[in-house]
Amino acid sequence: IEASEVERLQRLVEDFHESELGDLLEALEPDQRPRLIELLGASFDFAALTEVDEAVREEILEELETATVAEGVRELDSDDAVTILESMREEEQAEVLDQLPAIERVALQRSLDYPEDSAGRRMQTEFIAVPPFWTVGQTIDFMRETDDLPETFYEIFVIDPAAHLLGSVPLDRLLRSKRPVTIQDVMNAEPDRVEATEHQEEVARLFERYNLVSSAVVDDAGRLVGVILVDDIVDVLEEEADADIKQLGGVKSDEELSDTILYIQRSRFPWLFANMCTAFLAAGVIRLFSDSLERMVALAILMPIVASMGGNAGTQTMTVAVRALATRELGRANAWRIIRREAAVGLLNGLVFAIILGTLAGLWFQSPQLGFVIGLALVTVLVFAALGGIFVPLTLNRFGVDPAVSSGPFVTSITDIVGFFAFLGIATAWFHL
Amino acid sequence: IEASEVERLQRLVEDFHESELGDLLEALEPDQRPRLIELLGASFDFAALTEVDEAVREEILEELETATVAEGVRELDSDDAVTILESMREEEQAEVLDQLPAIERVALQRSLDYPEDSAGRRMQTEFIAVPPFWTVGQTIDFMRETDDLPETFYEIFVIDPAAHLLGSVPLDRLLRSKRPVTIQDVMNAEPDRVEATEHQEEVARLFERYNLVSSAVVDDAGRLVGVILVDDIVDVLEEEADADIKQLGGVKSDEELSDTILYIQRSRFPWLFANMCTAFLAAGVIRLFSDSLERMVALAILMPIVASMGGNAGTQTMTVAVRALATRELGRANAWRIIRREAAVGLLNGLVFAIILGTLAGLWFQSPQLGFVIGLALVTVLVFAALGGIFVPLTLNRFGVDPAVSSGPFVTSITDIVGFFAFLGIATAWFHL
Repeated sequence: IEASEVERLQRLVEDFHESELGDLLEALEPDQRPRLIELLGASFDFAALTEVDEAVREEILEELETATVAEGVRELDSDDAVTILESMREEEQAEVLDQLPAIERVALQRSLDYPEDSAGRRMQTEFIAVPPFWTVGQTIDFMRETDDLPETFYEIFVIDPAAHLLGSVPLDRLLRSKRPVTIQDVMNAEPDRVEATEHQEEVARLFERYNLVSSAVVDDAGRLVGVILVDDIVDVLEEEADADIKQLGGVKSDEELSDTILYIQRSRFPWLFANMCTAFLAAGVIRLFSDSLERMVALAILMPIVASMGGNAGTQTMTVAVRALATRELGRANAWRIIRREAAVGLLNGLVFAIILGTLAGLWFQSPQLGFVIGLALVTVLVFAALGGIFVPLTLNRFGVDPAVSSGPFVTSITDIVGFFAFLGIATAWFHL
Repeated sequence: IEASEVERLQRLVEDFHESELGDLLEALEPDQRPRLIELLGASFDFAALTEVDEAVREEILEELETATVAEGVRELDSDDAVTILESMREEEQAEVLDQLPAIERVALQRSLDYPEDSAGRRMQTEFIAVPPFWTVGQTIDFMRETDDLPETFYEIFVIDPAAHLLGSVPLDRLLRSKRPVTIQDVMNAEPDRVEATEHQEEVARLFERYNLVSSAVVDDAGRLVGVILVDDIVDVLEEEADADIKQLGGVKSDEELSDTILYIQRSRFPWLFANMCTAFLAAGVIRLFSDSLERMVALAILMPIVASMGGNAGTQTMTVAVRALATRELGRANAWRIIRREAAVGLLNGLVFAIILGTLAGLWFQSPQLGFVIGLALVTVLVFAALGGIFVPLTLNRFGVDPAVSSGPFVTSITDIVGFFAFLGIATAWFHL
């Protein structure tokens, strides 16, 4: 199909939704992607580029002529255009901007001037704003007569001559009002608004909390500069959840399926390295008990069980704590309650598993005393695991470090060290090794 | 404040958004919650109950009179009402339904008849549907004159006399069209639709993919039965991400901060139990090499390092695989490519860490040979960890088991067993122990 059968391709792609076109791009071999876009020419919808992985997007944009990109970007809503421009190198970005009409260039440049991942980057600069003294009828007529309306909108905004945001009118309320009523009388005088510099995660929490579909974006003087729509927020929420999941698993938040082997190898290295260091610490603890191990090899056989139970219990608590911190469910108000609860759960599960594991180990090595020792060690470890699982994320969070990224190595090193120390220490004391 | 100062409370709560009222409820002591609701009477917005944790909701509803609940539920959109009814015991649910007017009762009963977590449960049965031959003007007038419109809506639906869905008109398009145009001419003839029995996660993927804000819900005969709005979908996406994160960390997906100690202890038990079983397996592997361990205690000291490196590398790969499966990014089409890539990453990191770890261990025990042995074992483990990390989730997924729930114990048992076996086995052979 890549044999330049342009017309057949164009017909094929015609009915595609932008996300289907994006999937098609990802399914192609890397060198065929820019080729497809060039073949399709004007019938390629650049919005498809916002639907592919960032690595793929960067690669494609690298290959395309800036004139092609400028042409494609012109057709897009400003938020999509910004997503594409973000993925280009600075010189190329400037080249593309130079080829755009002045109005669009200024709007895009302003969005790009806001910090990465801020509301200003995600907003759409196309919106409808009317003065408060217009009537509902005037407003509807205005919308009927204006060609250049945003592609989708769910509310119109009300501004004063200096563009300060005064209010908003949801479309359904506009439709339900009689024509002679003034906008002032139907508008929501305290519209939902976010600062352009606010981080997109904060904006997403707001949308989630108040069930919004769109929100005005204002600059620091309260002037309306754009609008954020819920479909972008859905993407932000997904990205955020994705990042948390990956970071908890020791993977960089931006790792994508389309990344190269070398990139992934390097991105996973730090976590494994951190783990190696803590593992050496734990091995150092074991070494303290070399003599005991030589005298009683059963200890060497059983000690990984104690450590792994601790590691898993710690991970359970940590997962809950990290997630609750991310969704703002865990804060100062309830931290102590949750700490007490986790400690109680740790103690309870410690006692339950002490009995099970102690019995099994005692039977296996036909030594009830060994069973008692491992049981005692297990209670100790599970309580420490619970405390570590909650204190580590809370402390990291307090110091402004993202607990999802760095809690894991801390928690497992605590549980390993406590696990080996408790088990081998109690055994050495008990058996006078 | 709980001293029955009803008026002050009512004034306080008046301007609260439902989610703020929900937060207030959660912050109160459990026995004060139903009391607050009874004190507030008609000024309590039952929508707040949809914003609290399920455990809290169940507890509150347990305490309230069914008459109070029936009164509160009447005011709500049907999707919120269903969320509340879902949390009640069946007899009480029936009592509440009995106290509702017939129309609402039937609508709610129909929603409740759909399976849990289906589109039918999340949909709102309030929507606007018009015949195709109406004009835009007629439709707008109809909306102006009808009092009982849904609280929010973003599109109106077009149906035939038998209620079959024919099309949809987004509000912005309605506003942009001239009054004499017929609905037929402006409607989208292939509206987004979901089956009422479809799982909410599938619906959420659809919203995400096509950037929807609302979608028609149809029964199996294609008749319009409701509408799903994006704010519910945002909640579904959050729930789903939450469930994945918790399950990967070995915690039940429905565990909430408000659960009791006993509930949490029991819910975390199975994962720890599964982990204990696999740890015993690994201990069994170590026992095979008892003689070697007795002769060379350094092996006992170093073996946890090998196992923990394997466990962490396996978790990295597994996290990426589970997440990619959940977001449908990983499928048959690219599975082999990802498997090859993960194996390559494992081999590469295995070689890198073999050199680092081998050198450090060799220096520590002043035995280059021991360094070589641990290095060789590490390469083996990291390759197996990569393969296990991807094959386990893929296989579980193939057999219809949720990979997020059960991959963890499988992967770590593979890495532990391979780790101990490789390290102790290679050492025994090399040193003729």
